[in-house]
Amino acid sequence: MTLSVPVLPEGVDPAWLPPEAFRAVGARRTLIRGSGPLVETVHGEVADACGRFGGEVVRGEPSGAPYDLVLEVTDADPGLGLGLGLGLGLGLGLGEEGFVCRRADGTTTVTAAGPRGLLYGLFHVVRLGEAAFRGERRHEAHRPAVALRMVDHWDNVAVHPVMGQVERGYAGGSLFWRDGRARGEVERVRAYGRLLAACGINAVAVNNVNVHATEARLLTDRIGEVAVIADALRPYGIRTHLSVTFAAPVVLGGLPTADPLDARVRQWWARAVRGVYAAIPDFGGFVVKADSEGRPGPFTYGRSHADGANMLAAALAPHGGTVHWRAFVYDHRQDWRDRTTDRARAAYDHFVPLDGEFADNAVLQVKHGPMDFQVREPVSPLLGAMPRTRLALEVQATQEYTGQQRHVCWLGPMWSEALRFRPEGEGGVPVGEVTRGGLVAVSNVGDDPFWTGHPLAQANLYTFGRLAWQPDADPRRVLDEWIALTFPSAPERLVAGLRTLLRGSWRTYEKYTTPLGVGFMVQPGHHYGPSVDGYEYSPWGTYHFADRDGIGVDRSAATGTGYAAQYAGPWAELYESPATCPDELLLFFHHVPYGHVLHSGKTVVQHIYDTHFEGVAEVEEARELWASLADLVGPARHARGTERYEEQLRCAREWRDQVNSYVLRKSGVPDEHGRTIY
Amino acid sequence: MTLSVPVLPEGVDPAWLPPEAFRAVGARRTLIRGSGPLVETVHGEVADACGRFGGEVVRGEPSGAPYDLVLEVTDADPGLGLGLGLGLGLGLGLGEEGFVCRRADGTTTVTAAGPRGLLYGLFHVVRLGEAAFRGERRHEAHRPAVALRMVDHWDNVAVHPVMGQVERGYAGGSLFWRDGRARGEVERVRAYGRLLAACGINAVAVNNVNVHATEARLLTDRIGEVAVIADALRPYGIRTHLSVTFAAPVVLGGLPTADPLDARVRQWWARAVRGVYAAIPDFGGFVVKADSEGRPGPFTYGRSHADGANMLAAALAPHGGTVHWRAFVYDHRQDWRDRTTDRARAAYDHFVPLDGEFADNAVLQVKHGPMDFQVREPVSPLLGAMPRTRLALEVQATQEYTGQQRHVCWLGPMWSEALRFRPEGEGGVPVGEVTRGGLVAVSNVGDDPFWTGHPLAQANLYTFGRLAWQPDADPRRVLDEWIALTFPSAPERLVAGLRTLLRGSWRTYEKYTTPLGVGFMVQPGHHYGPSVDGYEYSPWGTYHFADRDGIGVDRSAATGTGYAAQYAGPWAELYESPATCPDELLLFFHHVPYGHVLHSGKTVVQHIYDTHFEGVAEVEEARELWASLADLVGPARHARGTERYEEQLRCAREWRDQVNSYVLRKSGVPDEHGRTIY
Repeated sequence: MTLSVPVLPEGVDPAWLPPEAFRAVGARRTLIRGSGPLVETVHGEVADACGRFGGEVVRGEPSGAPYDLVLEVTDADPGLGLGLGLGLGLGLGLGEEGFVCRRADGTTTVTAAGPRGLLYGLFHVVRLGEAAFRGERRHEAHRPAVALRMVDHWDNVAVHPVMGQVERGYAGGSLFWRDGRARGEVERVRAYGRLLAACGINAVAVNNVNVHATEARLLTDRIGEVAVIADALRPYGIRTHLSVTFAAPVVLGGLPTADPLDARVRQWWARAVRGVYAAIPDFGGFVVKADSEGRPGPFTYGRSHADGANMLAAALAPHGGTVHWRAFVYDHRQDWRDRTTDRARAAYDHFVPLDGEFADNAVLQVKHGPMDFQVREPVSPLLGAMPRTRLALEVQATQEYTGQQRHVCWLGPMWSEALRFRPEGEGGVPVGEVTRGGLVAVSNVGDDPFWTGHPLAQANLYTFGRLAWQPDADPRRVLDEWIALTFPSAPERLVAGLRTLLRGSWRTYEKYTTPLGVGFMVQPGHHYGPSVDGYEYSPWGTYHFADRDGIGVDRSAATGTGYAAQYAGPWAELYESPATCPDELLLFFHHVPYGHVLHSGKTVVQHIYDTHFEGVAEVEEARELWASLADLVGPARHARGTERYEEQLRCAREWRDQVNSYVLRKSGVPDEHGRTIY
Repeated sequence: MTLSVPVLPEGVDPAWLPPEAFRAVGARRTLIRGSGPLVETVHGEVADACGRFGGEVVRGEPSGAPYDLVLEVTDADPGLGLGLGLGLGLGLGLGEEGFVCRRADGTTTVTAAGPRGLLYGLFHVVRLGEAAFRGERRHEAHRPAVALRMVDHWDNVAVHPVMGQVERGYAGGSLFWRDGRARGEVERVRAYGRLLAACGINAVAVNNVNVHATEARLLTDRIGEVAVIADALRPYGIRTHLSVTFAAPVVLGGLPTADPLDARVRQWWARAVRGVYAAIPDFGGFVVKADSEGRPGPFTYGRSHADGANMLAAALAPHGGTVHWRAFVYDHRQDWRDRTTDRARAAYDHFVPLDGEFADNAVLQVKHGPMDFQVREPVSPLLGAMPRTRLALEVQATQEYTGQQRHVCWLGPMWSEALRFRPEGEGGVPVGEVTRGGLVAVSNVGDDPFWTGHPLAQANLYTFGRLAWQPDADPRRVLDEWIALTFPSAPERLVAGLRTLLRGSWRTYEKYTTPLGVGFMVQPGHHYGPSVDGYEYSPWGTYHFADRDGIGVDRSAATGTGYAAQYAGPWAELYESPATCPDELLLFFHHVPYGHVLHSGKTVVQHIYDTHFEGVAEVEEARELWASLADLVGPARHARGTERYEEQLRCAREWRDQVNSYVLRKSGVPDEHGRTIY
């Protein structure tokens, strides 16, 4: 049965899949060969496009005139007989998600080894547009670098009294849940799955890693609600995952313990997992936040995180499921007076001793930086220190610390830097290859008509998906894809404008917020807007130690917390000294006088003043540029963006003035250019 | 009908009315003469006491043996014929709340001009205890200095998403409301009224001055719920008041405007008030927070606050009601960059031009300081600047900024200082006589078993009531009353211990929190615990302007905001110069270098260090002292106090270390004594 394309509810933005994006395919004659549910999805997509643009789609064996496009699934691994070895690593084959694209004799052919590959191949052709049907194309093989490309939703089922429906959500309510119940809006969820598939994402965790009482029950008596979501996402090649509480055997099962080595506990989990797979046969697995920020975990029972993760892995293994165990473990009740404890060290200190102890289907999910999704952090040293463990990299598409989708902050370059980082130094393997356990983004999507609050924040989700598919991709090329899909046949003025607005937006945000990697100068709790000392005397381990003489955290091995020594040789050496440490991370690694001269030639204090004035000026320019695009982006989108740019500018000015005033009041050093600091 | 004494629910502390406090009265023969509902209350009290302690009470004409105690109401003003002129101001009479107490020939006699006076006379005898029945007592006349002695409850009917059931409540839920409904726990409300009457309070406002949607309706269709409370409180001489929203004609009446000069609006209010009085014939009046922190008000319609207050006064006048109009009007969206705007000036600037324009039954309710219930503020200059306006003084029994009833902070001395302050200087009239429109405390009571969270916080409510009755009373004498009532026959060790714990507690709190009057170094939002810069870059007008050279707010006329000039001559002169400004207010009035030498001989910075170390040491001592009283205060009370002292000590250390670290980091000046600063 051909599967119909989901119909967007009235007023919901099509994001990067407007009907127009399918014009090139929809105007052609297409032959589809193969079978299986996802082939029906592909057929539905092509049929829908043909319905709009006058083309034709045929199933099964060719008949009549030659086809413009052939989409086919082969039984054999197409690594054989198709000459695919050219584009693939030796012996790897395409896998079930890969495909080959070529064009000869007026026909463009996509060949996949499985229906999922065909779906990705179709979206590849969509991205190519008219170019897919011009000239000749050599065999070009595509397969995802990473098997698991996931978004984790921090969606609560019941509205949390402090965190709301979506924890750190800046795009309205949840697509899945509302006020304690499943929303059941299957069509919107299908449309969401389609968007995810079009950028290569193949897994979704449907609830917050902070699993509260209501959410805990999704694992057991409410698994049916998860199954409805899974059914809606499956036709787009997406498997569903669940965040679970480590205390489930106690809070749901009535057991006196959740000790991972207790036989009753293991039996309880085995039974619970059987129930899950009965409802969702292709269930992906669990996401677990344990012994982290107050969540329960194996420490309660004197067990290690490997014990905890392996117990869940054992329950999941017979069904092909995976446990994603988060490495975000640190002391969130630190005494700010104690300068020897360093939160940045925590994940490494906790997990490196466990390397090699995790089960095959246990993945350690590591945030890209050692702290918590700040605008600038070094890459987590854990990523280079656990060679015998499957690692997943977690990034945050939801802009908790990067403007909360009121500010434009395209994170592609930041993620790309992390993915290209080579923990062993030059010649080593980049992070994007280390993290074979998956690439994960915390979702930035909600029930907002634009999906992501700020319409331009859509680019973050799209970019994440594409980088997860190909971690060494140039993010700017990905951004251009997003622009081309979202604004089909955009005039050059719009393309250039959007590039300008997005490409530099992360650097701009960094300029007017926390300087030189020091992080966490945000309002406590909600994390929006500046509060330079907001976390300075808190138990959260997030300090800048500014005094009248200097600022920054000494994380050197020689005189500081020793964090710098968690890196392999070349990086440890580079970060150890202020003389070699990159400017943008200087205050993350070192406490320096305000007069310290950066590699840029500026003093730290003048750098702070200058970047804060520049950052605001850049936001002012961006706002003007957005205003000039009013005629090209559609009125609703433009109005939304305009409102957000107003707020971004107001907030950027607040950041500028608070940070500059704070630094001036403390340092006493006047601005070289005599600008107003309060 | 004799009214029975309210029975406390199981586990609720009797506070300052334990049965034992009535022993002296209850063991005697008492004659009660007079009639009216409150006489029945008096009879019920005495009868209850006699039932416990073996005495006897007789109504009406004397019979048989002489009486130990005669409680009588005369029809004529007892100022005539009883020689009362001795104790009263000439020609004032006793009024309906006054009474005369004397003892001769073995009989103690209380004579009152009305039943309310008799009730207060009875509690006077209870306070005297055995002393009331010894020797002779000369005629001694008592009457309250202020007619209205009110507690304002900031209780919400519906739980507010941020502020909860009781705004700034630190004693559990509300006695009146829960989850959107009236609790209907009449017996507890009666017991509460009895406690209030015993310290002289005669008015209660039953809902938060921030009137939200649910609470607005108390004025109209939910007035019956208020009437139930009024009925419970009336037998203890307490009139009920209501906080109303200025926008009521719009939000409840469906009118297009709440313009106070609009005839439809005036008619709407007149009708609403008629409805109120139909339900509560002795209704006291309205409390209004208008054009304040986002509340609606007359400014919306280009009208003055006199226009607004007088409109409500006109509606209330035919029924004998009063409007209490709060003077807490300031710009809560101030730009922190603008040093010319001074929130401290706001009430004066807004209201002094309106002096003489308010109706007779409109009272302007003024906070005791110009800011917002900080641990140290100067007395509001408004109190000396509106001679043709009825003023009420508002203090805050709920300890929003003074430890939130987790810290012991007995506010008697602070309030007494304000009441004794003479706005015109020496020879002028004290605030306690200026504020004839009433003395008002924001309630510190909730449904907590100890009423006030910390058992020792009961002393604040008691002290407020007694100071409202007699503003020039020595607060230490009032404290001794509270100790004697609450702990009948307490051994000297307990009396001395409680005195030590309470008398100095305000100064102790001041020592370890914000120094020298600068205020507002609290955590934003909930206002508990330190955050030195928490309000420094906020829109709330609450700044300390600390930089590396100095700290404080220049409010002088010569170089600052001019606030000091709002005072009459002698005070304006005193506050104008750092050379004459009292130490404890120095940083409120002046920005000075850290090295500025106080009258105490210490520098500002050393004073800050010293007081912060001292304050914590004093809390440590207080905790030890409390521990030593374990055998004398009862186990439940002691356990509660112990838990609170632990928290007070933890929090005091946090204050000490954060304030000292902040100042050290900014000033660079080391502690003279080399103590640890982080």
